[in-house]
Amino acid sequence: MAKKKQDTGPEARLPKGFHDTDAAELRATRAMLDKIRSVYERYGFEPLETPAIEYTDALGKFLPDQDRPNEGVFSFQDDDEQWLSLRYDLTAPLARYVAQNFQALPKPFRRYATGTVYRNEKPGPGRFRQFTQFDADTVGTDSVAADAECCMLLAETLEAIGVTRGGYLVKLNSRKVLDGVLEGIGIAPGADGDHAKRLGVLRAMDKLDRLGTEGVALLLGAGRKDESGDFTAGAGLDARSIDKVLGFLSAANASRSAALAALSPLVAGSATGEAGVADLAEIDSLLTAAGFGDDCVAIDASVVRGLEYYTGPVFEAELTSTIVSADGQPMRFGSVGSGGRYDGLVQRFMGQPVPATGCSIGVSRLQAALAALAGGAAKAEGQGPVIVLVMDRAQLPRYQSMAQALRSAGIRAEMYLGTSGMKAQMKYADRRGAPCVVIQGGDEIAKGEVQIKDLIEGAKAAAAITDNKEWKEARPAQISVAVSDLVATVREILARHASAA
Amino acid sequence: MAKKKQDTGPEARLPKGFHDTDAAELRATRAMLDKIRSVYERYGFEPLETPAIEYTDALGKFLPDQDRPNEGVFSFQDDDEQWLSLRYDLTAPLARYVAQNFQALPKPFRRYATGTVYRNEKPGPGRFRQFTQFDADTVGTDSVAADAECCMLLAETLEAIGVTRGGYLVKLNSRKVLDGVLEGIGIAPGADGDHAKRLGVLRAMDKLDRLGTEGVALLLGAGRKDESGDFTAGAGLDARSIDKVLGFLSAANASRSAALAALSPLVAGSATGEAGVADLAEIDSLLTAAGFGDDCVAIDASVVRGLEYYTGPVFEAELTSTIVSADGQPMRFGSVGSGGRYDGLVQRFMGQPVPATGCSIGVSRLQAALAALAGGAAKAEGQGPVIVLVMDRAQLPRYQSMAQALRSAGIRAEMYLGTSGMKAQMKYADRRGAPCVVIQGGDEIAKGEVQIKDLIEGAKAAAAITDNKEWKEARPAQISVAVSDLVATVREILARHASAA
Repeated sequence: MAKKKQDTGPEARLPKGFHDTDAAELRATRAMLDKIRSVYERYGFEPLETPAIEYTDALGKFLPDQDRPNEGVFSFQDDDEQWLSLRYDLTAPLARYVAQNFQALPKPFRRYATGTVYRNEKPGPGRFRQFTQFDADTVGTDSVAADAECCMLLAETLEAIGVTRGGYLVKLNSRKVLDGVLEGIGIAPGADGDHAKRLGVLRAMDKLDRLGTEGVALLLGAGRKDESGDFTAGAGLDARSIDKVLGFLSAANASRSAALAALSPLVAGSATGEAGVADLAEIDSLLTAAGFGDDCVAIDASVVRGLEYYTGPVFEAELTSTIVSADGQPMRFGSVGSGGRYDGLVQRFMGQPVPATGCSIGVSRLQAALAALAGGAAKAEGQGPVIVLVMDRAQLPRYQSMAQALRSAGIRAEMYLGTSGMKAQMKYADRRGAPCVVIQGGDEIAKGEVQIKDLIEGAKAAAAITDNKEWKEARPAQISVAVSDLVATVREILARHASAA
Repeated sequence: MAKKKQDTGPEARLPKGFHDTDAAELRATRAMLDKIRSVYERYGFEPLETPAIEYTDALGKFLPDQDRPNEGVFSFQDDDEQWLSLRYDLTAPLARYVAQNFQALPKPFRRYATGTVYRNEKPGPGRFRQFTQFDADTVGTDSVAADAECCMLLAETLEAIGVTRGGYLVKLNSRKVLDGVLEGIGIAPGADGDHAKRLGVLRAMDKLDRLGTEGVALLLGAGRKDESGDFTAGAGLDARSIDKVLGFLSAANASRSAALAALSPLVAGSATGEAGVADLAEIDSLLTAAGFGDDCVAIDASVVRGLEYYTGPVFEAELTSTIVSADGQPMRFGSVGSGGRYDGLVQRFMGQPVPATGCSIGVSRLQAALAALAGGAAKAEGQGPVIVLVMDRAQLPRYQSMAQALRSAGIRAEMYLGTSGMKAQMKYADRRGAPCVVIQGGDEIAKGEVQIKDLIEGAKAAAAITDNKEWKEARPAQISVAVSDLVATVREILARHASAA
């Protein structure tokens, strides 16, 4: 039916990094969002929605020295020349909201938010420029009980959407502990001269997953040559310092109490580091009291992503199951949720520190991971509508009233709205996943009857019948009932399929 | 607590035309969206979600002669210099989607969509630059049964969200009938020379609400001087033509069958006009068969908004109730939903006409109207969480486990996460709308007990007690129970308030 596109018309296509979402995927997403929301509500968070567009400077993405917005955000100028941007996360708008409404809010302020965020970055496989996050934050308290709640919330949310305990791990670390360890090897957190060295150490630590302990040791020290012969300069630490950092990283391989015991000597003498370990110990005791053991939340010092941004505890939720991909390789799922304490974000506006902590679930990513684990796409097929076929266009009002009677009984239904014949109508009903079709031709009208053809039962029967004549005589799964019995009969058919499913 | 803003920080504010949505309003919106979705699903529509960002030319908002996007849309260039825009409605993205996936879609294709759209226009009272629409469209059929369904869907949706029959009216008109009437007075639809005259007539007709029949007659003829003395040039019709147009407009004041009878002679001799009246007659018979009488869908030729865009039937849903505003003026609510048949939108991409029809509900507008009708803001207050107070910070794990026990029983609960004293904690519980608080100090711990204070009951009791001493002795609505009875007791309190509400 589609003819060649005219030269003058635009091409129907989407920009890279964006995609359409079909009914089955949307239904799965909605079900997941409902489950997440229910956990967040149970934890006492209240919903808040901020717009997708904010002033670029309010998001912290305006580069005053270059007089233009950061490249990673979608930006445009308002008619008064001020720069606007699409939000790239839900935390920056929260900080703006809190600063704007500070006096009126209960303290601590606990809100959850879900929505799409936009990144003007190079898209790749599984990396989109528009995706959905689901955040919960507690603003206005420096109690690490709020951080403990983030770990609990991440764990409980994953369990609520069907990941069993043991199938995920929330990893917990602390910026303060890291600072303490670095202080112990002579890298002060505040000093400008140490910044490059600090970054080098963090980058090396972040490669533990990929390069293992030996590779990280090289990068912490003199440097490392990879398989291709390329050389990466190291952070230049001495052997004792390297051991200390590796000791810190290996605190992952133990229970929370063992990890705490291992971390304590590494930060001895650093006030910041000792405070960080005390924070983790308090979080540990709260988690234990709430029933979240070592099998769901672990202290893991290898979690260093975001440690430049966060100011206290950081957490990252991972799915631990591996599956074998199509090409036989074991596939691991990365982080599906993360967060941490950030005490500086609201301060940008208010000039005073406002302690805050929160976590964010990457909904699209989590859904993709669960789908892969389930061995297929994350689709939730809905029941298609009952289709009332149009045997005679002069009888449309009759068919319409039947569709309406079904709808009034709460049944998804539609009269066929196209203008094609019987064969196309049956094909349409199949495509829509209709459980049954309603047929009323001249004969049925004369008798006050209606034919109901059960498409699911019919497909099974058809598979069992091999002879065309036998088929025509049997007319499997097709019954005649009085028009007044239409709704009750359809309801019976739907109930039968629902209990069989 | 808030200090003066530092000179260097950005100001915490939103661009004009955007707003934050608080918990109570969000809950009301979510409840409304769920109800709308349930009706759309029942009518057989399937959900589809397209991204917020599209190529500007795909949205039809690129001005090739000026090599830039239309001013009404938020636009920015991608890194390959191509123009992108935020969607300004949900129909243009649908057209792109259908053209892109034409072969794979069932025909007709019936989808619903909800989401935010963006207009780069001057904001005003109740006019935002970001708002939510809820659309349903049927693409790929020229049967006006699909148009009839739009009217039914609008009516049924309004009833589903609580507008009673008689409290709304879906007005139905037809571009073809209008074209027939204009043809009858010598204004041909296609001829270029008539375009200005045609527009003048449409503009005059659109002013019926504001200027009444006399005012419109002047604008159709020689022109009109308003109260301030400003003169608006007229469309220059002769008296007979003016009568015909006014006759067309007055077809509103009657039943659908009476309106059809009045319209027929006005289009006699125009093939287009007669086809338009036949369309309306078929829609009328389908509506009647489905139980939608004159009290919910009316033929009203004064509905001319969008008649330049639509190609067949058009519909507009209005709330008919009036309320008296704060300054004593009667307030009317305008359109809360509208739609029509548009056969040209997909053609832009495919070079062949693809008939389509649909309707859109303005969710924010509808919610505001319902709120005003209900005499207050559209808020759905949720039940606040149970707050476990912190009497002794050394006992946090104990309090945390109580909060967790409540959550595990499905009860919204949180341990107080701030660091303030008892008075601030009680104020916090009040602010959060907590139904009760859980208190456990040293005495209670020793006895293995917990105090539960019912804040709702307590507030009532406090109102009845005038004497401070009496208050202290009575301790209204505060009871001691064993820790093991905490969950059951809280559940009883919540159940009591739920049944009282």
